[in-house]
Amino acid sequence: MSSVSIGENIKISLFGESHGLAIGGVIDGLPHGQKVDMEKLDKFMARRKPGSGKYVTQRKERDEIKFLSGIKDFIIMGDPLAVIIENNNIRPEDYKTLAYTPRPSHIDFSAKKKFGEHIDLIGGGHFSARLTAILTAFGGIAKQILESKNILVSAHLDRIREIQDTRHNDIENIQKAVEKSENNRYSIINEENMEKIDKVLQELVKEKDSTGGIVECSVFGLPPGVGNPVFDGLENNIAKMSFAIPGVKGIEFGSGFEGALKLGSENNDNFYIDERKEIKTKTNHAGGIIGGISSGMPINLKVAFKPTPSIGKEQETVNIQTMSNTRIKIKGRHDPCIAIRGVVVVEAIVSLVVLDYLL
Amino acid sequence: MSSVSIGENIKISLFGESHGLAIGGVIDGLPHGQKVDMEKLDKFMARRKPGSGKYVTQRKERDEIKFLSGIKDFIIMGDPLAVIIENNNIRPEDYKTLAYTPRPSHIDFSAKKKFGEHIDLIGGGHFSARLTAILTAFGGIAKQILESKNILVSAHLDRIREIQDTRHNDIENIQKAVEKSENNRYSIINEENMEKIDKVLQELVKEKDSTGGIVECSVFGLPPGVGNPVFDGLENNIAKMSFAIPGVKGIEFGSGFEGALKLGSENNDNFYIDERKEIKTKTNHAGGIIGGISSGMPINLKVAFKPTPSIGKEQETVNIQTMSNTRIKIKGRHDPCIAIRGVVVVEAIVSLVVLDYLL
Amino acid sequence: MSSVSIGENIKISLFGESHGLAIGGVIDGLPHGQKVDMEKLDKFMARRKPGSGKYVTQRKERDEIKFLSGIKDFIIMGDPLAVIIENNNIRPEDYKTLAYTPRPSHIDFSAKKKFGEHIDLIGGGHFSARLTAILTAFGGIAKQILESKNILVSAHLDRIREIQDTRHNDIENIQKAVEKSENNRYSIINEENMEKIDKVLQELVKEKDSTGGIVECSVFGLPPGVGNPVFDGLENNIAKMSFAIPGVKGIEFGSGFEGALKLGSENNDNFYIDERKEIKTKTNHAGGIIGGISSGMPINLKVAFKPTPSIGKEQETVNIQTMSNTRIKIKGRHDPCIAIRGVVVVEAIVSLVVLDYLL
Amino acid sequence: MSSVSIGENIKISLFGESHGLAIGGVIDGLPHGQKVDMEKLDKFMARRKPGSGKYVTQRKERDEIKFLSGIKDFIIMGDPLAVIIENNNIRPEDYKTLAYTPRPSHIDFSAKKKFGEHIDLIGGGHFSARLTAILTAFGGIAKQILESKNILVSAHLDRIREIQDTRHNDIENIQKAVEKSENNRYSIINEENMEKIDKVLQELVKEKDSTGGIVECSVFGLPPGVGNPVFDGLENNIAKMSFAIPGVKGIEFGSGFEGALKLGSENNDNFYIDERKEIKTKTNHAGGIIGGISSGMPINLKVAFKPTPSIGKEQETVNIQTMSNTRIKIKGRHDPCIAIRGVVVVEAIVSLVVLDYLL
Repeated sequence: MSSVSIGENIKISLFGESHGLAIGGVIDGLPHGQKVDMEKLDKFMARRKPGSGKYVTQRKERDEIKFLSGIKDFIIMGDPLAVIIENNNIRPEDYKTLAYTPRPSHIDFSAKKKFGEHIDLIGGGHFSARLTAILTAFGGIAKQILESKNILVSAHLDRIREIQDTRHNDIENIQKAVEKSENNRYSIINEENMEKIDKVLQELVKEKDSTGGIVECSVFGLPPGVGNPVFDGLENNIAKMSFAIPGVKGIEFGSGFEGALKLGSENNDNFYIDERKEIKTKTNHAGGIIGGISSGMPINLKVAFKPTPSIGKEQETVNIQTMSNTRIKIKGRHDPCIAIRGVVVVEAIVSLVVLDYLL
Repeated sequence: MSSVSIGENIKISLFGESHGLAIGGVIDGLPHGQKVDMEKLDKFMARRKPGSGKYVTQRKERDEIKFLSGIKDFIIMGDPLAVIIENNNIRPEDYKTLAYTPRPSHIDFSAKKKFGEHIDLIGGGHFSARLTAILTAFGGIAKQILESKNILVSAHLDRIREIQDTRHNDIENIQKAVEKSENNRYSIINEENMEKIDKVLQELVKEKDSTGGIVECSVFGLPPGVGNPVFDGLENNIAKMSFAIPGVKGIEFGSGFEGALKLGSENNDNFYIDERKEIKTKTNHAGGIIGGISSGMPINLKVAFKPTPSIGKEQETVNIQTMSNTRIKIKGRHDPCIAIRGVVVVEAIVSLVVLDYLL
Repeated sequence: MSSVSIGENIKISLFGESHGLAIGGVIDGLPHGQKVDMEKLDKFMARRKPGSGKYVTQRKERDEIKFLSGIKDFIIMGDPLAVIIENNNIRPEDYKTLAYTPRPSHIDFSAKKKFGEHIDLIGGGHFSARLTAILTAFGGIAKQILESKNILVSAHLDRIREIQDTRHNDIENIQKAVEKSENNRYSIINEENMEKIDKVLQELVKEKDSTGGIVECSVFGLPPGVGNPVFDGLENNIAKMSFAIPGVKGIEFGSGFEGALKLGSENNDNFYIDERKEIKTKTNHAGGIIGGISSGMPINLKVAFKPTPSIGKEQETVNIQTMSNTRIKIKGRHDPCIAIRGVVVVEAIVSLVVLDYLL
Repeated sequence: MSSVSIGENIKISLFGESHGLAIGGVIDGLPHGQKVDMEKLDKFMARRKPGSGKYVTQRKERDEIKFLSGIKDFIIMGDPLAVIIENNNIRPEDYKTLAYTPRPSHIDFSAKKKFGEHIDLIGGGHFSARLTAILTAFGGIAKQILESKNILVSAHLDRIREIQDTRHNDIENIQKAVEKSENNRYSIINEENMEKIDKVLQELVKEKDSTGGIVECSVFGLPPGVGNPVFDGLENNIAKMSFAIPGVKGIEFGSGFEGALKLGSENNDNFYIDERKEIKTKTNHAGGIIGGISSGMPINLKVAFKPTPSIGKEQETVNIQTMSNTRIKIKGRHDPCIAIRGVVVVEAIVSLVVLDYLL
């Protein structure tokens, strides 16, 4: 198996290569009769579009989704929904020289070892982050369906270099925060940091370097009792799906790695009865999940994105044909920080996983 | 679904409640004809046994595995292998008072919301960490099979409170390190820290508190090209399985969250040709996995365990019957740090996932 | 994979060998809070018990189910339900001489080719029809749950040799017919044939021969709209599960093979509005399923059981050690017609599949 | 779930509606590096093409497969292979009048009950037999891969009305028979029956009626030991996949329903050692499968297709809007016997299932 994800109800197949004819996907199991707000979906898709920010990759894909099946008059019919995005900005010559010199921390070496010489890795091939456009489309629909059930999924760029955004746990008016992070080019809550990030990226472009970043995502409004014990809990499946996003190297829920160093008396979330006579916890170090099952507090998680591996700086590599050491400078158009566009993809996959439990 | 794990080849079902008749599991898909070294398996199982260390829970389960099927004369036959561990040290009276006052950061509240009033949560019920004994038995067999293919899976207690163990990346003679961490009661490499950990635990017991910890695990000897892109990569499936261990709240591969704050030029792993004419990388910030597929470098990951939620200290909770705020002091026998016994469980689940890819 | 069945909601693992320590199974996904009527379940189980009829196998297993988990005070808790049946009537000496001479139409030869020499095939090993006792237990619970939703699953011995039972489509008072077929030792509706079947079996025992049979099963009360198109329709999954019963060699829905020879104008089921203003069809050649989805008419299917392969008559076989032709007379206790005890197993698996769609 | 098929290694997603933009599918898990003979694939596809015989539907789809991914220079790369067939002969006006009067034995009624009013059922929508074109494309590739392993999958029209074709078990030169049945318009072995079938179809067209048919399929060259016990045997999975073909209502292996009426001494397959010192059976009533596992004899099965439900003859139905009885005459272009074009689809799905076991 590779590109088929098996939720209990929602099944997704992804296909396509970065510089092939088209990329696409099939999603089966969405609830029929649901109307899709296309304008909203376009806006959602735009948040991961290349070329939208000043410092993200200059490759200008139109990223226009074409629905092949499953939807009519914007209503989900119930049979599998298939979408494709045709590739119309193919510049494979950028990549030709790379055939025998695997790029450091890129899939070139590992993928050839698995698939042999015939696999097409131009622009990442099937491993390309471009496939997240399809996941984003599916996740955007899932997010709309969740919203119709008063469940809100929202992510923001929690951290890039030394710049720390406001965290979901630290704010009172989450609605306002979410509106902000959905509407600026870095998906941050504290917009005072916009220019600081501009400068970080400017510097990275100048230095032909890149950086990673951390994305925080929360799910507000999920009732308690959703999930499963042992192998199919919320954490298991959100984690599994998160690692489908290229560049993700870590995930933690609630206090996560920090909580591992705390005392039980510090990390435990004490119960109380709130003003609406509902049982809540005073803190949310559990990230809203205990034993794989939602507690009624917001689901909260952080995802670590590694720095974009494609950098213009000279790096050491090997020539696998001559079996000798050599050096490489990667050309082409690359994001200095994939975590920025990753924010909306995290929202998408979390929406898909959470929706799967509710069907 | 809840307690069935679907690898491509290996399927596992777990069952049982902590204080029921027996816990057990079924594993299907192990390679037939393989001999199981029972002494080795017993030793492996002993590493997670309660009551073995001075400061772990005093509940003395014999944890004796009974094979019901699938094995004859210590040889795996190929049909499903079922094991049970009969419960012979049942003290449910310890838990009786807890029926209406959910323990903070425990599954009581969430599980009742999902399963209703009839679910038996004494001692954690089906959510109990006792079920990891079955996973450990299965993983111990998987580890032996991997060793017959010269693949070594090893974990150690990377961090507890301020005590940092030697890391796998920092050592030359990994074989020696592994021998150490498999043979002391805290599963650490740097045995100079034994007494420091003694003191930490002593203090926790005295304070009726607990702490979390971080476990590092590596897989040595896995060839490049193992894994899958997108949804079924090594990271996806190791992560999914890790969250089946009670108390796990985070996982990272290679440089993980730390790497997210670095530059590409710092975090990328440059290739070179080593003395045996093999392609290696100078560093292993990728944790041996790129795009879901092994790179030939050791697989490396860290898992964050939260502090044991059951603590003797007084905590705030609610009475769900009277819907009023109240306080609770948890009695019973609990580990001050579940991460210690978690080390061998991480080895077990990583062994199971890696073996699944090789069948 | 082999012994794990993946429904959408219900997952089943079976394990055990006919003459091992125990056989058993785990079922996950049954709805929690449901009370199990144990007396009714015992009666259901008794219908497939060996030694209950005059002419079925004389092996007297007590077939006593032991619940290890998932149930308390007869209420399904929601965690996996595990059962075992301990083997207490082991006579492996009956089978010893068979090691090198595969029995005709038995699994001996194929199973050795797959699993190698170590597989234990005494009494059928993991392939034994004894494992259907576990499926029957699980199916008996599923049947009770369906009955609580006013859905009735019922099967009868449609045909043995030249003896044809009354068919479900041909009777008016189905309730009465069902009561009969559940309460006689051949599971037939037309009890006038009891003695004829007695004679057939008497003759078979005398001739050391066996015969096959056909089982008809219907599901009454299933509303229209249940099922799925293409790969996961009712027919796909009922068929898949039916072939899990040892000896099943064919399945047809509605008019099946006979319908294949008819004209469309003969085989089509014309719609009409009945007296209760419901849309029904005048005939039910479709067996209640169109395009994988229920039509509101009774689900109707027939399953073909081959003759018991173990017969006392001399047969030709080979000695795989000396690679020479030889002859064999099979000893041991065997049913002259496995279809008789198969009736209740068909009810069980149909109940499990139908319930899976309704959860 | 609906249109995702989960083999152990091969995963298939189908999508599309008969009169939508395109139909298509994704197949994941085919072995990389395999060259596809496109001419052979075209010829295979042509066998199910509408408009190719004199009496099959006059709808002339070009049925041209467009590969979107997974293949380059005719070599399978290893990432998911996606194909679409664009719809270019859309005549939805043929179907408009049918909106409120469900066609007898058609999916109209059941599908609306499941998916609600929005589902598009023009020309069968997602339920259309047109989707088998995609399965045929995938199966054609699987068949080629099997042939490269010296495994031959072949089907023929075993029976239409009173016309019985030569059976696979009854012939000596199977290679010659296969060549014939692959190369005439009715996929039969005994070409003396060509004109008789012409007449049957001529008569059906004249009478505005249809008929069913039986397809026999064999797999030659599969070694013993392939398959699994209990739930995932060859029979389970071939049966499950067969019912994905619209119109299939029954399946039997080897002697099947006929064998159910025989004695064990008649139906058992006695072993002998053949001239090449291989263990064979004198007969093949088991259809090459015992206990879900291949015996080394040819896999043999028969599939029953119901008569095409769309007939021009007047039929009784109901108007679901006015809830009154009414009559219907179906217009449009329909095969008088879907089993004819079904032959190649059976070959396709059997090839896919068998290949799945061998990967």
